[in-house]
Amino acid sequence: MSSRVPPPFPADTSLELSAREMERLVRLATDRIVDHVASLPAQPAADTDSAEALARELIERDPPETGAPAEELLDLLFTRAIPKSFNTASPGYLAYIPGGGLFPSAVADFVASATNRYVGVFAAAPALAQLETNVVRWFARIAGFPATAGGFLASGGSLANFSALVAARRARLPENFLSGVLYASDQTHHCVAKAAALAGFPARSVREVPSDEAFRLRLDLLAEAVAGDRRKGLTPFLVTGNAGTTNTGAVDDLAALADFCAGERLWFHVDAAYGGFFLMTGRGRQAMAGLERADSVVLDPHKGLFLPYGAGCLLVKDPGTLRRAHASHVDYLPGMQRDPDFVDFCEISPELSRSFRGLAAWLPIKMHGLGPFRRNLDEKLDLARWAAEELRRRPGVEIVAEPQLSLLAFRVVRPALAPEAVDDLNRRVLAAVNRRGRVHLTGTVAKGRFVLRICVLSFRTHADRIRAALEDLDAALREAVE
Amino acid sequence: MSSRVPPPFPADTSLELSAREMERLVRLATDRIVDHVASLPAQPAADTDSAEALARELIERDPPETGAPAEELLDLLFTRAIPKSFNTASPGYLAYIPGGGLFPSAVADFVASATNRYVGVFAAAPALAQLETNVVRWFARIAGFPATAGGFLASGGSLANFSALVAARRARLPENFLSGVLYASDQTHHCVAKAAALAGFPARSVREVPSDEAFRLRLDLLAEAVAGDRRKGLTPFLVTGNAGTTNTGAVDDLAALADFCAGERLWFHVDAAYGGFFLMTGRGRQAMAGLERADSVVLDPHKGLFLPYGAGCLLVKDPGTLRRAHASHVDYLPGMQRDPDFVDFCEISPELSRSFRGLAAWLPIKMHGLGPFRRNLDEKLDLARWAAEELRRRPGVEIVAEPQLSLLAFRVVRPALAPEAVDDLNRRVLAAVNRRGRVHLTGTVAKGRFVLRICVLSFRTHADRIRAALEDLDAALREAVE
Repeated sequence: MSSRVPPPFPADTSLELSAREMERLVRLATDRIVDHVASLPAQPAADTDSAEALARELIERDPPETGAPAEELLDLLFTRAIPKSFNTASPGYLAYIPGGGLFPSAVADFVASATNRYVGVFAAAPALAQLETNVVRWFARIAGFPATAGGFLASGGSLANFSALVAARRARLPENFLSGVLYASDQTHHCVAKAAALAGFPARSVREVPSDEAFRLRLDLLAEAVAGDRRKGLTPFLVTGNAGTTNTGAVDDLAALADFCAGERLWFHVDAAYGGFFLMTGRGRQAMAGLERADSVVLDPHKGLFLPYGAGCLLVKDPGTLRRAHASHVDYLPGMQRDPDFVDFCEISPELSRSFRGLAAWLPIKMHGLGPFRRNLDEKLDLARWAAEELRRRPGVEIVAEPQLSLLAFRVVRPALAPEAVDDLNRRVLAAVNRRGRVHLTGTVAKGRFVLRICVLSFRTHADRIRAALEDLDAALREAVE
Repeated sequence: MSSRVPPPFPADTSLELSAREMERLVRLATDRIVDHVASLPAQPAADTDSAEALARELIERDPPETGAPAEELLDLLFTRAIPKSFNTASPGYLAYIPGGGLFPSAVADFVASATNRYVGVFAAAPALAQLETNVVRWFARIAGFPATAGGFLASGGSLANFSALVAARRARLPENFLSGVLYASDQTHHCVAKAAALAGFPARSVREVPSDEAFRLRLDLLAEAVAGDRRKGLTPFLVTGNAGTTNTGAVDDLAALADFCAGERLWFHVDAAYGGFFLMTGRGRQAMAGLERADSVVLDPHKGLFLPYGAGCLLVKDPGTLRRAHASHVDYLPGMQRDPDFVDFCEISPELSRSFRGLAAWLPIKMHGLGPFRRNLDEKLDLARWAAEELRRRPGVEIVAEPQLSLLAFRVVRPALAPEAVDDLNRRVLAAVNRRGRVHLTGTVAKGRFVLRICVLSFRTHADRIRAALEDLDAALREAVE
């Protein structure tokens, strides 16, 4: 039977780029990217002046029918849109939890997207899926989990925490799970309560346990809450410990929590999204001792491993718990692996098609080795401690949260002023520091009072930038007093 | 107060690349990427021979302490790991639902990761968040949703479907939602049942409604099921319609489903992950008429818009439903937007930190305009119809599923043979086609029988490759008969 009759329609090749066109587009982007990254130290740590007006100007309700030159589009990004933002890649970004943005990760994302491989199913790209599995196993090793542990990379900490809750719900609660209760300190990241809501738990299922003066979960109150709930016929099933809160950097007493959970037969989950990779350092291992006894732990490589945004990781002690919560049998998919060396991510995680996100971790770790990461993390611990010591020497400044890792909180105190006036003074100091643009800090509310935070986590942040923060803070204090 | 005392530790700059080192790394990667992409037409459509052995060889249980040269690592990727996989970027990849891998999207991912901006909160990067919001609004326009609709980009269809279910659960069911029931045809992608399980629904809450001979949901049986469940005291709340099933490409009668859902006051969700972007074509709009009446719809730009993996989209008619399911108040975050022109993605989606995934859609749409996408999609519809016509002319070949969009299913029939033997014959034919490497097809089970599928969805696939598929199929048929 002949198939020689030509079909009655032309080939549309208008989306296909020649090698020359690809080269040219990469050149245009690379020139701008390299200029941008190389000049980061000189850029403001944040600049959102008139950014909202720019956003409004950029509103386009209808998709364009015809194209525009790549230069124009890249210039719009690099000269207008990107500069008008929090400079989350800058050495001066000490706000929230800083990201990093390792350059080899960006190149890895370029490789992954251009080759467009599919790693959700092992059979579709065995060697590439294996590289991602290696990354997960390295993280398990860093967390002190055994070689039999399992896990996967998620798009960030929120979804990694969500999957931990889903695995625990499935492992520890009956089908009607609405009497289940989970516990976490009042300092816990809101994504844990959000994850519980997404997983179907009513708001009252999430018990907020008060924290102590160092913002650590109070174990006595946890024990009371669990006992009280059991008396009421509810079903305590999970405790979340914090390994570095977003608010003030607190690390709960994880060893004590592990003991408590073992005694009460509760799932012990640790949110180490911010703090986890400090386990590569001696001080981090000491601060987070007990984490290795968790049933599940969340680490964010886009925080403590300096990767670009889009990389979270869930580790579980028993990979069967992930499988039971996620696996399905499907006719249109290839067969799944039975060999425990190999992993089908779609069987242990909520996603099927998704990007090859493991490459952004694999390439920089392989290129640099862990050594430079460890040394950088040690340096960030030093910098936070140094900042705290320096701040402590300033009259009228109080350390609200000592750096348990690389995050500290402090405030200006004025005993003569009303608490609201002091909050207001701190807000003015924060604004004055940020106005200078060398560093960007944020505030939060701790024990009811507005406080300032310094979080050191970018690999680009060194002593010179912390010194700049202290200088600008001194200037801001002088201004605020005047 | 002086901060001049130098801190007692050195700066670790070992993760910082100079402009020259960045340029060099990009050059190394680009040379390999451009060679790879430019030679895609000549590469096999899949090659996993000894890929498992390679994966085993690549197992590394311990993270490396020291680094390795980038050339070596990139060579491992490009000469060994990437070739040993399903070539999901190839013009010959007609398996599952093909992805694309537009080159400008890969460059956009490079830009997004290198500049590492954070778009989950509008205030952090207003202009960039706006570009992603524009993309979502363009997709809403394509779906025929009103300008007041809302939505967000997810990592893929699975999580987009999950968020649709969570929004519907919150909008339509009480806190104790376990009596809620959702409905979908037996052809529905398994991610819908998986999403229900993740959201806490027991397996019995997902009602699988039989499909008709064209694999479309049977409305009469849906009506019966809903009425029966109401009589039992259960709470029907959602129907999922398919706009292109993964199994055989079926499009449910969406207009009839919209009528039914309106009458029964059920949330009408459409999974258009595969089919949705065909709404840009006249034939697509005709096939999917009624989709615009859905409460929520999932589109996968990494399918019908040819983007690299990692791009799904959820659209909802009422953005308040997403907000009520996802928003939280948090002290340590900046203020959220009240202006309806602006969107905080963290308030309407499960993620907080995540990659700037909108850029991978924005750049190619702006560079090319929608025209080339529309023409490409029209061409894919033509190619699937042409393939069906050609196959129909072959004696002993039966079209099992006509192409309602760009996916068809067929099988070799031999009335003299037992059904199991025919299944076996089809499996041999499939293996023989794939062995030739010019195209890669997959099979599935439809109405209890093993069938072959052709899904045309890569922008790189044109008539020459469909002709190759037909030739290789003819050769395989001859072989299988011998």
